[in-house]
Amino acid sequence: MLIVQKYGGTSVGSVERIKNVARKIISTRNEGHDVVVVVSAMSGETDRLVSLAHEITHVPVEREMDILLSSGERVTVALLAIALNSMGYPAKAFTGRQVGIVTDSVHTKARIERISGERVQEALKEGVIPVIAGFQGISEGSDVTTLGRGGSDLTAVALAAALKADLCDIYTDVEGVFTTDPNIVSDAKKLDKISYEEMLELASLGAKVLQNRSVEYAAKYGVKVRVLSAFAEGNGTLLTGEDEDMEKVVVSGVTYDRNQSKVTIIGVPDKPGIAARIFGPVAASSIIVDMIIQNVSQESLTDISFTVPRSDVKKTITLMESIIKDIGAREFEVKEDIAKVSIVGVGMRSHSGVALKMFSTLADEGINIMMISTSEIKISCVIDAKYTELAVRALHRAFELGN
Amino acid sequence: MLIVQKYGGTSVGSVERIKNVARKIISTRNEGHDVVVVVSAMSGETDRLVSLAHEITHVPVEREMDILLSSGERVTVALLAIALNSMGYPAKAFTGRQVGIVTDSVHTKARIERISGERVQEALKEGVIPVIAGFQGISEGSDVTTLGRGGSDLTAVALAAALKADLCDIYTDVEGVFTTDPNIVSDAKKLDKISYEEMLELASLGAKVLQNRSVEYAAKYGVKVRVLSAFAEGNGTLLTGEDEDMEKVVVSGVTYDRNQSKVTIIGVPDKPGIAARIFGPVAASSIIVDMIIQNVSQESLTDISFTVPRSDVKKTITLMESIIKDIGAREFEVKEDIAKVSIVGVGMRSHSGVALKMFSTLADEGINIMMISTSEIKISCVIDAKYTELAVRALHRAFELGN
Repeated sequence: MLIVQKYGGTSVGSVERIKNVARKIISTRNEGHDVVVVVSAMSGETDRLVSLAHEITHVPVEREMDILLSSGERVTVALLAIALNSMGYPAKAFTGRQVGIVTDSVHTKARIERISGERVQEALKEGVIPVIAGFQGISEGSDVTTLGRGGSDLTAVALAAALKADLCDIYTDVEGVFTTDPNIVSDAKKLDKISYEEMLELASLGAKVLQNRSVEYAAKYGVKVRVLSAFAEGNGTLLTGEDEDMEKVVVSGVTYDRNQSKVTIIGVPDKPGIAARIFGPVAASSIIVDMIIQNVSQESLTDISFTVPRSDVKKTITLMESIIKDIGAREFEVKEDIAKVSIVGVGMRSHSGVALKMFSTLADEGINIMMISTSEIKISCVIDAKYTELAVRALHRAFELGN
Repeated sequence: MLIVQKYGGTSVGSVERIKNVARKIISTRNEGHDVVVVVSAMSGETDRLVSLAHEITHVPVEREMDILLSSGERVTVALLAIALNSMGYPAKAFTGRQVGIVTDSVHTKARIERISGERVQEALKEGVIPVIAGFQGISEGSDVTTLGRGGSDLTAVALAAALKADLCDIYTDVEGVFTTDPNIVSDAKKLDKISYEEMLELASLGAKVLQNRSVEYAAKYGVKVRVLSAFAEGNGTLLTGEDEDMEKVVVSGVTYDRNQSKVTIIGVPDKPGIAARIFGPVAASSIIVDMIIQNVSQESLTDISFTVPRSDVKKTITLMESIIKDIGAREFEVKEDIAKVSIVGVGMRSHSGVALKMFSTLADEGINIMMISTSEIKISCVIDAKYTELAVRALHRAFELGN
C-alpha cells in the first residue's frame, strides 16, 4: 500500500517526539508499505511567529506573514528527515514548493490548485521516504503561500489524492472521532467509521478533529482518511463514503458548541429585502452568522433571531444599533450564554421521528429549546448554556450511543 | 545611489532591533538612495537549530541541514518587511531562491554560481524595498543550499556585484576595522579605508569582521564594501582597491591569533617526498595547517615545525605518533601556548626594512621569535602566548598606528 501519514504539531513538539514519529514511520515501512510523510510545525511555533509579527504591528502584510509562518514546517521536515537518515532509512525533506503544491495567491488562506508531486514519486522510486512540509505552497507568481490553520491536514489529503494513495493517516492527539465529547460523557465510544458528510457536520459543529476543507477535499476525491492517535495504539476512525452499515445507525454522534451568542431583532417590518439589509452589513464586517430564524409575521411585524460567534458580540451590537434604525425595527436583544447541541447521522435520511425524539428527550430534562435548525443529516437546538452537559448526556443515552 | 545594506544577527536580534533596522533603512531611502536589504537570522537562532539537529545525531545529513538552517533567515526577512510596511514603506521579503541565487550543490558550504536578481530589479522599479534572506540559495536541482557561516556577507556582496550597486554596507557590531584590537591597545584607531588584500590578511589572521570569501568576491568584482556599526553612528571602514594613499602607509594593522599550537618533528630524514608523507595524512584528517617551517638540514636530518588549530591538537598528536614511525623521524614535540602576531600593510611592497623593524621591536621587549612567515603584505611571528599583549602594544607603537 501507499500510505500518506500526517503528524500534527504536538506529535513533533520535541526532538524526542520527532524520533518517536521516525520510529512509527519506520515500522510502517517495515510492514512493506510505501510511506509519504507530511508534518506540521512544532507545537507552539506558529503562535510564537505570529506573536513576533504582532509585536511589530497588528496588521502585518499577508504576503510576508506567509514567508514567516512557512518557516516553522521547514524546521520539522528537516529534523524528521535527519532522524530517519540517522536510523538508517534514507529520507528527504521537501518544502511545499519542491513537491509542486501550487495554490492561488490568497495569502494566509490559499487554496490548492494542483500538485505535481514529481519529486515525491522520484523519491519513492529510489526507496527514499519523502518528508513534506504541510500548510504551505507556492503561487503562480512564485511567492510562498500558506493554507490557513489546520492546513497541514489539507496538504496530506491533497497529496494522497494526487498520488492516488491507498490511505491517508492523520496522526493527532486524540484516538479518533467519538460519539460525543468523552470529557462530558464517560462512556462515549470511538467510532470505527464515519462518512465524510457526518464528519463535515461534526467539524463545523466544533469537533476539532479535522479541518473542514480537508474533509471536503477527501470526499471530493474519495480519499480514505483515517484519524488516529500519535501517542496511543489503535485503529482510529476511518472516513469513507457512506455504506449500508452506516445507514442502519440513525445517529452517529452528539456534539455541542458553546461559542455562539444569540441576537434577536424584535418588531421588524415584514417586507421584501429586509433580510439583506440586516445581514449585508453583518457579512461586510466579516461576522459569520450560523443559524437564522424568522418567526411568522404578526400584523406585518416579525422577529428575526440569529447566532454569531461570541467573540463578535461587541461588533454585532454596534452594527445592530444602526441597523434597527435603518430598517425601522423596534429593538434588539442579545443572549450570550447559549449553547448549540446537535445530533448528526446519515441514517436520519431513511429514519423518521429522529427530531421528535431529540425534542422530547430535551423536554423530559426540562430544557427549553430557543432555536432549531435542521439539515439532511443533522438537527441542532439552541439551549441555555448551563444545560449543555445535561443535554449532551441525555441525547447520548437516548440514541444509545454508549459502549 | 544604489546601496546594498546587510544587517547581521545581532542587529536583528529582537523585534525592537528589527524596528531600529527598519528606521535606518528608511532614513537611507529618505536621503534619496535605492536600498536593497540583506539580513541574517536573529542572533542565536542558527545555533538553536544546529543543536536541535545534534540532539538527534552528531552527523545530520547535510541536504536536510540546509532546509533546517535556511528557515532562520525567512523569519527575519518577513519580520523586517512587515516592519517597513507598517511604517509606510512598501517592502517585500524574498528568499534566496526567489531572487535567483543559484549555487553549486555542496550543501552547508555552497558557492554562488550566479544571481539573476530579476525580482529585486522589479521591486526597485516599483519603489518597493527588497528584503533578502542572506546565507541561502538554491541548487540547479532546486534544493535549498546554504553558504556556510558568515554567508550573509557573501549574499550581500554578490548581490551588490550582480546589481552593480554603488556601495555595499555591512552593518555589524563593531564600528569598523581597527589598527589592532582595541581591547589590548587603548589608542587603536579605526581605519577609514583598507585594501581588499589587507582585509583578507586580517580576516585570515583572526580579525573576525568580514567573512573571507566575501572579501575575495568583493575584490574580484570591485564591490565597494563598507563595514560599519548597526548601533553607533560613524562612517565605518571602506574596503577598496589599493590607491596611492594606502601605499604611503607601511603598516595598516597589527593582529594576533592565540588559537594555534606548534608541532615540531625532530630528526626527519631529509629526502624528497617526506613533506607529503607528513602533511598528506594531516590534510586527510581535515586539520588545517597554517605555517610550515623546515630548518636547514644537518647530517641529512632536518626539523619540521608547523602550526595547527589548538582544537585539533589531540587529533594531531595521534596522527604524529604513527607518522614519525612511518617516516623514521626521531621524535616530535607540541607547544600549545603560542601566539601568532602579525603586521599587515600594502605599503610593505614599496618599503624595505619593515621585517627588521618588527624583529628588533620584539627583541627590545625580550620576546623570542619561534617561527617567522612572510607574504607580500604581511609578516607573522610565532611567540610565547604570554607575550601577546606586550608584542601587540609594542608593534602598534613602533609603527605609529595610534591616534
